[in-house]
Amino acid sequence: MQIGIVGLGRMGGNIAKRLMRAGHDVAVYDIDANARAALGNDGARPAETLEALVASLSEGPRAIWVMLPAGKITEGTIAHLASCLAPGDILIDGGNSYYKDDIRRAAELQKTGIRYVDVGTSGGVWGLDRGYCLMIGGEKAAVDYLDPIFAALAPGKGEIEETPGRGSLDPRAEQGYIHAGPAGAGHFVKMVHNGIEYGMMQAYAEGFNILESKNAEVLPPGERFELNVADIAEVWRRGSVVTSWLLDLSAIALAKDPKLEAFSGHVADSGEGRWTVEAAIEEAVPAEVLTAALFTRFRSRQEHNFAEKMLSAMRLGFGGHKEQA
Amino acid sequence: MQIGIVGLGRMGGNIAKRLMRAGHDVAVYDIDANARAALGNDGARPAETLEALVASLSEGPRAIWVMLPAGKITEGTIAHLASCLAPGDILIDGGNSYYKDDIRRAAELQKTGIRYVDVGTSGGVWGLDRGYCLMIGGEKAAVDYLDPIFAALAPGKGEIEETPGRGSLDPRAEQGYIHAGPAGAGHFVKMVHNGIEYGMMQAYAEGFNILESKNAEVLPPGERFELNVADIAEVWRRGSVVTSWLLDLSAIALAKDPKLEAFSGHVADSGEGRWTVEAAIEEAVPAEVLTAALFTRFRSRQEHNFAEKMLSAMRLGFGGHKEQA
Amino acid sequence: MQIGIVGLGRMGGNIAKRLMRAGHDVAVYDIDANARAALGNDGARPAETLEALVASLSEGPRAIWVMLPAGKITEGTIAHLASCLAPGDILIDGGNSYYKDDIRRAAELQKTGIRYVDVGTSGGVWGLDRGYCLMIGGEKAAVDYLDPIFAALAPGKGEIEETPGRGSLDPRAEQGYIHAGPAGAGHFVKMVHNGIEYGMMQAYAEGFNILESKNAEVLPPGERFELNVADIAEVWRRGSVVTSWLLDLSAIALAKDPKLEAFSGHVADSGEGRWTVEAAIEEAVPAEVLTAALFTRFRSRQEHNFAEKMLSAMRLGFGGHKEQA
Amino acid sequence: MQIGIVGLGRMGGNIAKRLMRAGHDVAVYDIDANARAALGNDGARPAETLEALVASLSEGPRAIWVMLPAGKITEGTIAHLASCLAPGDILIDGGNSYYKDDIRRAAELQKTGIRYVDVGTSGGVWGLDRGYCLMIGGEKAAVDYLDPIFAALAPGKGEIEETPGRGSLDPRAEQGYIHAGPAGAGHFVKMVHNGIEYGMMQAYAEGFNILESKNAEVLPPGERFELNVADIAEVWRRGSVVTSWLLDLSAIALAKDPKLEAFSGHVADSGEGRWTVEAAIEEAVPAEVLTAALFTRFRSRQEHNFAEKMLSAMRLGFGGHKEQA
Repeated sequence: MQIGIVGLGRMGGNIAKRLMRAGHDVAVYDIDANARAALGNDGARPAETLEALVASLSEGPRAIWVMLPAGKITEGTIAHLASCLAPGDILIDGGNSYYKDDIRRAAELQKTGIRYVDVGTSGGVWGLDRGYCLMIGGEKAAVDYLDPIFAALAPGKGEIEETPGRGSLDPRAEQGYIHAGPAGAGHFVKMVHNGIEYGMMQAYAEGFNILESKNAEVLPPGERFELNVADIAEVWRRGSVVTSWLLDLSAIALAKDPKLEAFSGHVADSGEGRWTVEAAIEEAVPAEVLTAALFTRFRSRQEHNFAEKMLSAMRLGFGGHKEQA
Repeated sequence: MQIGIVGLGRMGGNIAKRLMRAGHDVAVYDIDANARAALGNDGARPAETLEALVASLSEGPRAIWVMLPAGKITEGTIAHLASCLAPGDILIDGGNSYYKDDIRRAAELQKTGIRYVDVGTSGGVWGLDRGYCLMIGGEKAAVDYLDPIFAALAPGKGEIEETPGRGSLDPRAEQGYIHAGPAGAGHFVKMVHNGIEYGMMQAYAEGFNILESKNAEVLPPGERFELNVADIAEVWRRGSVVTSWLLDLSAIALAKDPKLEAFSGHVADSGEGRWTVEAAIEEAVPAEVLTAALFTRFRSRQEHNFAEKMLSAMRLGFGGHKEQA
Repeated sequence: MQIGIVGLGRMGGNIAKRLMRAGHDVAVYDIDANARAALGNDGARPAETLEALVASLSEGPRAIWVMLPAGKITEGTIAHLASCLAPGDILIDGGNSYYKDDIRRAAELQKTGIRYVDVGTSGGVWGLDRGYCLMIGGEKAAVDYLDPIFAALAPGKGEIEETPGRGSLDPRAEQGYIHAGPAGAGHFVKMVHNGIEYGMMQAYAEGFNILESKNAEVLPPGERFELNVADIAEVWRRGSVVTSWLLDLSAIALAKDPKLEAFSGHVADSGEGRWTVEAAIEEAVPAEVLTAALFTRFRSRQEHNFAEKMLSAMRLGFGGHKEQA
Repeated sequence: MQIGIVGLGRMGGNIAKRLMRAGHDVAVYDIDANARAALGNDGARPAETLEALVASLSEGPRAIWVMLPAGKITEGTIAHLASCLAPGDILIDGGNSYYKDDIRRAAELQKTGIRYVDVGTSGGVWGLDRGYCLMIGGEKAAVDYLDPIFAALAPGKGEIEETPGRGSLDPRAEQGYIHAGPAGAGHFVKMVHNGIEYGMMQAYAEGFNILESKNAEVLPPGERFELNVADIAEVWRRGSVVTSWLLDLSAIALAKDPKLEAFSGHVADSGEGRWTVEAAIEEAVPAEVLTAALFTRFRSRQEHNFAEKMLSAMRLGFGGHKEQA
């Protein structure tokens, strides 16, 4: 079927390509003319403006997938596109928007008859070949209409072993996409997915840190091991309880650079990890691990913070303790 | 080759079977005569005492794999076996012993010429068919001698994609076993493996809890979703960043019982999670996630604790706040 | 000077009384006629409506202190009062409002010329006699105008030892009140105060729990102590590093009920603890302790949560582990 | 009464002085001759060896207070002294020893008839004037015999308000010392005291960090405050819920150096914080706050750790994310 894609970065560009591979008719727009041209060379129909993109879609209802950074750019682009579309048309936000923004936008667009679908999209740079895991929110008719798009983007059953006892459950989940609920539900599920991702990553990170710290040259001979963390990551990929794709990626990184010298230790975070903690607070449920994972990223980006200096100031105050510089 | 197995519980029994499937000659002992007999029916040579087990091993050096709960039982059995063995023989502790106990035992046995090998064994109830991930500590000659045993127990390369760039690294890791270092190193690596396991499990647990709490009937209509957690677990198995074996198992459990009504919520913990935190403290490295995962298990087994009552007592003291019963 | 007080609960009623003790002319309103009458008996001038309250204030600019639960009631009352007031008049929110609500309200009211002052008020049920610690946000002229009110409510210097080196710093801080900054700054500082309060309370709670758990009858004789937690709280009040008012209150509670049997263990939380964590997330700074303190309160109000059941489901899945009921 | 003091550092020296002020006869020893001489000038009787110290005590049973860093030095000194003492004599470890070491030592010394008393001593550099809070473990007769010593070191009732309802409780607690239980109980209580201290300090540190971060120049004008943290610390000393001695010390430090520029941010930790977490793990009770407080100190002393680099390696692996340097 026909679809427009707005935003041809790492994610949007690959989504366009994967849809074309599946035989879909893809019109594309990006603010960067080079990005448009590149996709044009790959077989997409580039448009020079959002208006031109909309005009280039002949099938009705029209469907446009917006794949931009969450926040103002997505907000403005959706508003702009909405002004060009007609009742029945479908706007898809495939980025990492906050689910409360989806709920608000869907309600606003509903007044104009335009339908809004939010898609949490996981898969990163591997999605082009591996397929994208899609978590979809929106009204049923719109989601059903877009099914060929979702089916083409999703990984499909592949060689992954079947989960027993799924009889009456949604068969789309086994293809790698679900209709999670109304507007916002897609990004809510994706948000929690990323929250879990942070927690899992931190679990591995702490574990490998404990292993690597056992190699420290300061340790006395009897207490020091010489553990090969690259081999440990590799062996855990087979038959252990902690096998995962993140472990596969860790094994690749450690095989290449066992001391991880290429990395500074500064770790970024994006909105989803924060929103997951806020969702937990709003629900009044504990989320210690997901929160700790977020906070260690904050700390990784700081030099010594005021909190640490406060501790030293108190220690000097009551005990006369001078800290090492 | 020939090997004796002591302890025929869920783990030891399956290890014996997997070794027999690979053509090894397995003598077995368990305190429970029925367990011995059952393995006998499967082709093992049962012995009625530890002495008889040792006597039944004709190949030298003899190798005996002890697969018992960590602590006094393992300690006593190893001491008993050591008194029956000769210099050059090998005692293997395949259970979940504390790595400092390994270091101590290895040093003690060295005086008698008996060699001690510690093996961290992961794989649970699936190991018989899937193979066991083995993390091995001990002297090189003993570990090399036992190689046919380890190779038979390990999962092998299987269909798991190869990690690029492993060129000069230990090829055994790709078969699912490693020689991690001297005595204690095997259980140290296994300990950290379990620490990571706790952290990953808690990451999933918190995430699914946030999802399920969004279904709460107390929420007002606009804020409530009706998320199908079984479908969410399934969809994440394909193309998402959080795919893992633990997720596969979660998907199986949720497909069968989406509200998990079969579970009380009491969660046990074993030594490794605790020792991992203690290792972090000894190394003076932070391990917030692994620790939080441990503490939530402690809390899950308590009714309201004294700490919570203290909070209420203070709140009553300064604010006159009365808590809900 | 003259002031109106709206909301005569535990906090508002005592604030009115403390102001009258200092000779101020206090008009009061509460939705509950009995509460109004009670304050009337104490010397205040009760009004039957908000309009009547405003009308009863003859001094200009008029000042009205709203002391209601944060949220809709405060929001509506302030809007109602604003419709009765004139440019130059001052509305004070002394409750526990969210500081972002203050910023919004102050900007809205500014259009009408009404001035908005937010006051974070600490002191609980002891404030009537001990005085209230006041953290004030708003424009300088309004805060200065209200100085006699703040001075009367604050504890004053008392017998508390002087902090050396405060020379050029704000002398009001030593009297127990500060002008923290523009609208919102008062409640922001109060919010963080409560966040710290949660963290301190949890520190004591965990510590006393570790002490009390050392008394557990399940412990073997050599490992068990019979610690008297009431005496421990008392002794720490003198010369230790952890002396504090919260410890004083703990000592009182434990002297009366050393097992704290009067408390269920359910612990409520109010907005400030949550907002403090959200502020930390917004600033991207770690706040592990304040967050953990919040989460333990959430958990204290739950029966076993879905997260814990997920852990058990996974443990059954990989290890065949059955949990104790 | 007569007492020997071994170890004349910051703590031991002041303890000797405070005892002399109360009229006790104090013999002293330190490995540093200057330290001995200095105390001699203050009125103590210096001894040049441990043997000479023992010989200089004429009253029986003799009592010697060892005030040295926990670990090997204390261990060796106690063993040395034990070899010079006679049955009935009393050895006091007033340092920060691990309570399990006390239990072991007391049992060993009991065989020789020497009595062992462990004293957790809080008060820091302020103890000389303010008095020391003492938490005492050991057999009743020995603790009673030493009562004049403890009474002299403790702060006494002072001007601290009495806790109501203590009627039948131990009156010594109100003087600032308690007999907590058998050997080890004193240091156990002191250990938990320090654990709480870490948690409280971290609560303040995080809160002040959130305040100070609200002053960050990177914030847009509407979101930034200019909070004076020195005034905030001061105002909280009066009538707030978070008043404490640690807050008093914070107010002093912030008045002098509001940006705390004198501090590097490296924060040391000593054994007690670690042992408190280990005690919680041994008791299987959660201690999130005390643990988080410990871990932030660990992190404060590291440059970027391996854990953080692991996170970046995974992020690069799945998303192509490059971190900022």
